[in-house]
Amino acid sequence: MAVPQADSTRVAAAVPPDSGYAARVRGSFERQAAMRLIGARLKELRPGYCAIELPYREDLTQQHGYIHAGIVSAIADSAGGYAGFTLFPADSSVLTVEYKINLLAPAAGERLVAVAEVVKRGRTLAITRGEVHAEHGERRTLCAIMQQTLIILAGRPDQ
Amino acid sequence: MAVPQADSTRVAAAVPPDSGYAARVRGSFERQAAMRLIGARLKELRPGYCAIELPYREDLTQQHGYIHAGIVSAIADSAGGYAGFTLFPADSSVLTVEYKINLLAPAAGERLVAVAEVVKRGRTLAITRGEVHAEHGERRTLCAIMQQTLIILAGRPDQ
Amino acid sequence: MAVPQADSTRVAAAVPPDSGYAARVRGSFERQAAMRLIGARLKELRPGYCAIELPYREDLTQQHGYIHAGIVSAIADSAGGYAGFTLFPADSSVLTVEYKINLLAPAAGERLVAVAEVVKRGRTLAITRGEVHAEHGERRTLCAIMQQTLIILAGRPDQ
Amino acid sequence: MAVPQADSTRVAAAVPPDSGYAARVRGSFERQAAMRLIGARLKELRPGYCAIELPYREDLTQQHGYIHAGIVSAIADSAGGYAGFTLFPADSSVLTVEYKINLLAPAAGERLVAVAEVVKRGRTLAITRGEVHAEHGERRTLCAIMQQTLIILAGRPDQ
Repeated sequence: MAVPQADSTRVAAAVPPDSGYAARVRGSFERQAAMRLIGARLKELRPGYCAIELPYREDLTQQHGYIHAGIVSAIADSAGGYAGFTLFPADSSVLTVEYKINLLAPAAGERLVAVAEVVKRGRTLAITRGEVHAEHGERRTLCAIMQQTLIILAGRPDQ
Repeated sequence: MAVPQADSTRVAAAVPPDSGYAARVRGSFERQAAMRLIGARLKELRPGYCAIELPYREDLTQQHGYIHAGIVSAIADSAGGYAGFTLFPADSSVLTVEYKINLLAPAAGERLVAVAEVVKRGRTLAITRGEVHAEHGERRTLCAIMQQTLIILAGRPDQ
Repeated sequence: MAVPQADSTRVAAAVPPDSGYAARVRGSFERQAAMRLIGARLKELRPGYCAIELPYREDLTQQHGYIHAGIVSAIADSAGGYAGFTLFPADSSVLTVEYKINLLAPAAGERLVAVAEVVKRGRTLAITRGEVHAEHGERRTLCAIMQQTLIILAGRPDQ
Repeated sequence: MAVPQADSTRVAAAVPPDSGYAARVRGSFERQAAMRLIGARLKELRPGYCAIELPYREDLTQQHGYIHAGIVSAIADSAGGYAGFTLFPADSSVLTVEYKINLLAPAAGERLVAVAEVVKRGRTLAITRGEVHAEHGERRTLCAIMQQTLIILAGRPDQ
């Protein structure tokens, strides 16, 4: 990949201000009823990074039998939001301000995996970038890329 | 609203090339299993325009009890896609290339209504604009705005 | 246009908190050297609304002789930023967080006019929507639509 | 960076269908009068990749003395467009369908460098991702990230 990756402004290796971030994020994810409805699970969590897995189900599809763009977006959005939330203070909440997603290939296969990382964590806003991959056996296809803006609601605990 | 609305390039009043567009779009919507899963229904359809309604359900929420941004996006995306699809030829399919959505207010209330219209219908691509409103009794709150690019797959019927 | 326009959440008619908004915005626009370089001028200003005009010049073009997408974006971004800035407090600044623009038609003709309005003005963020039209004699072509997020920097005057 | 980079769907290493791509792209860039006006130059070109450099100039600034977001966008958009154009056939043109850009930090410093790569090259569309960095001496700051959709106009040579 040609785009420089070792930039010092990247925060993927940032130290989260809340050492209990993992339990806080996992608790929040479990309260997302929509993730439960579609069968998504939190697969991996690190400071500034989150991966969400979604097994294929027929009731998640659009008219051609692929996972609906809105469902693809839902896991990408949650992955981005929780990537950001790992780096937020303990007594804060996270909200999605906006995101943009490009759908590159049909979301087919045995499962989707949405991964997202924080590109910049400011005082009020955090910016993330995400990808959704479709996995089928050994094959892996990039099916969406996302760019997202989050807002940090300080002093308003998630729960 | 200050942005000029009467522009001649607007296609909301366009004559659809397929006079049977309504049945074709409704049939396609009914094959979207994801819309059925979340309880969305096609509320209104006109050439270049589509409205989708989604009653509030607890299993559609994020961690604060509002409808999940991904679900809000799903109905906005479908409304945009089907607004475009009303203007496509009978033997074509529609795919979302990309969209961007701003979430303006919590998606709370009794129901959400996503509306979308075609801003431009080209030979290969169509561009739509959408809004999602939350309704509660007489009150109506704009909770999301969307901008979307669709691709017309000519010669590949939806079914 | 089918998308409801009379929504009460629209702020185009909002009362600006700074009655001297027009002088403040015009002063800021005049300090944008980039607008001067390309020959843009502030055409119209109302609370929550801004229009910027750009006469065609050959040195603004891309390889096919149309105005470069980046220049189209520059006036759309400024129009959105100043539409928002009309509604900000006197001692604040405005910054663009992000925007997304669709280029619908070649930016040809005698001049471009970018118009933008505020869709939502929050405490920290403001969301705008914009359009760029190409004008040639009596003809008017919609050549771009934009959706933008601004941040309000309170307590940091523009100058 | 946590987002997997070695995915087989990445095309940065793709073989361009036109072995004369470099001369074709450089010729097109030189016909972009807007790039000349702002003082941008094509810094690096590889299949699926393009870097554009822009030295700081006072006449490119917004009201706070940073490079205007529209100018930042202009070089990001051109970098993305030409990254894509390296992979297009000899007798084709490239147009930007849309892009979205997040502005992460003030565009200050001695120069900006916009880099972009093709994430997916389809038959009709190509998707790119870009970054703009501000350089000052040894220091390098990520100041914008972009996601872009291009259309390939086959059979319509750029010149």
